[in-house]
Amino acid sequence: MSESYELGKQLRQFLRGILNEKEGAAQTYTEWGPRVDLAGLKDIYAPQKVKRFTVRPGGIDNLALHSTDTFRIPGQGEFTVDFSGYFRVARDHPTTNDWTTCEVLVNIIDLRLYGKHKDIGEIAVSLNPDILSTGQIFPAKVANGPKACRIATGAIFELRQLGVSVFNKEPILLMNEGIKSIPPVNDPSGHALLFMVPLFNRADPDGKPMAYLSSLRYGAEDYLTESKAEAFRAGRKL
Amino acid sequence: MSESYELGKQLRQFLRGILNEKEGAAQTYTEWGPRVDLAGLKDIYAPQKVKRFTVRPGGIDNLALHSTDTFRIPGQGEFTVDFSGYFRVARDHPTTNDWTTCEVLVNIIDLRLYGKHKDIGEIAVSLNPDILSTGQIFPAKVANGPKACRIATGAIFELRQLGVSVFNKEPILLMNEGIKSIPPVNDPSGHALLFMVPLFNRADPDGKPMAYLSSLRYGAEDYLTESKAEAFRAGRKL
Repeated sequence: MSESYELGKQLRQFLRGILNEKEGAAQTYTEWGPRVDLAGLKDIYAPQKVKRFTVRPGGIDNLALHSTDTFRIPGQGEFTVDFSGYFRVARDHPTTNDWTTCEVLVNIIDLRLYGKHKDIGEIAVSLNPDILSTGQIFPAKVANGPKACRIATGAIFELRQLGVSVFNKEPILLMNEGIKSIPPVNDPSGHALLFMVPLFNRADPDGKPMAYLSSLRYGAEDYLTESKAEAFRAGRKL
Repeated sequence: MSESYELGKQLRQFLRGILNEKEGAAQTYTEWGPRVDLAGLKDIYAPQKVKRFTVRPGGIDNLALHSTDTFRIPGQGEFTVDFSGYFRVARDHPTTNDWTTCEVLVNIIDLRLYGKHKDIGEIAVSLNPDILSTGQIFPAKVANGPKACRIATGAIFELRQLGVSVFNKEPILLMNEGIKSIPPVNDPSGHALLFMVPLFNRADPDGKPMAYLSSLRYGAEDYLTESKAEAFRAGRKL
């Protein structure tokens, strides 16, 4: 390698050091895919009528959300927790006005879930601000048939009783291969395609995994009213 | 948000801008998990006798590898390609000397695969140097039963005829839930757990996906002789 390459490499490492020090964590900003341009997209709240197999212009969906997650904590066991809360999804304008062919880029821009387990206590889930959670709705495989969607999601799980927050470095891939409306409201059939996603301690991000996410199922519910969405954003459990 | 927070954020964005410009790409170095310490680990070559259900000390495995990958290229279709080549896996010392309980940290530190498709031509696969491909072998679920392994892999696919190289930002999760030896030599049952992993153009890393990896099956074969491994490292197709 040339000297100027080496010098550049050292400079980059030095600058990265500054970035990490300022952030107090070894994570730099990660984008797993394209960003939705929020300009011109408006927040959408209840009440809404969502038509099946119909394309709609882009917007920011504020939807109730539930999930059932199983965590494996080495030395402690497996714990299944029911969560409920909300997510806010920036949904880009579709690439065509036709249900079958259109693609739609999406980003999760807010996520708040709460759950409680008798053994490991209360858990709050939020969006990881160091990662762009991004995905898309695909063209349908069959004309006028259901569409598939995928969203690579970066979350933080705050295990309050254990006094630790953990996060995923590999995406939690939320997906649904049978969506019949955009957005897929009142659809309980979402799941995460995963196998033992390692969860790392936010206070020791370069350490070994503290836990694993071994299963996740989810369902998007209906649009929230603006006041309910605001209450979630304010951190209130509803 | 406070002014000093905002200033820090702007400074970080400025520094990131410098980093990206110097590298000629928006990718910074990514680690999906822990790094195996290579000090004290020796390269292992053929001939080897690998005993089933037996723990062995750490080392660097040089193994023949084959895979069958399916790519979806929007507007062009789906293409299934058979690859063969090699990978070099740094395998840490096991956490215990017991097959059932031990965990083993692994990193893929080299990967060379070649394949050819009648329509899209020759494809060369290599390890993405911007990403640490990392994973582990888990404790067995049942005493003396098979073990599971996962490796989050970052690859570069050089589509020579199309004149483009694409890479994954989300891991290609290589896994095998039924390994009966360490390493799992002559085991054709590996697969990647994935759903339409987006592949981005190395020349336009922040653009939209150029292609998707829609399926991948793989099998690790036997240890290579040192000369065959060196030939792969030198870029020769065998």
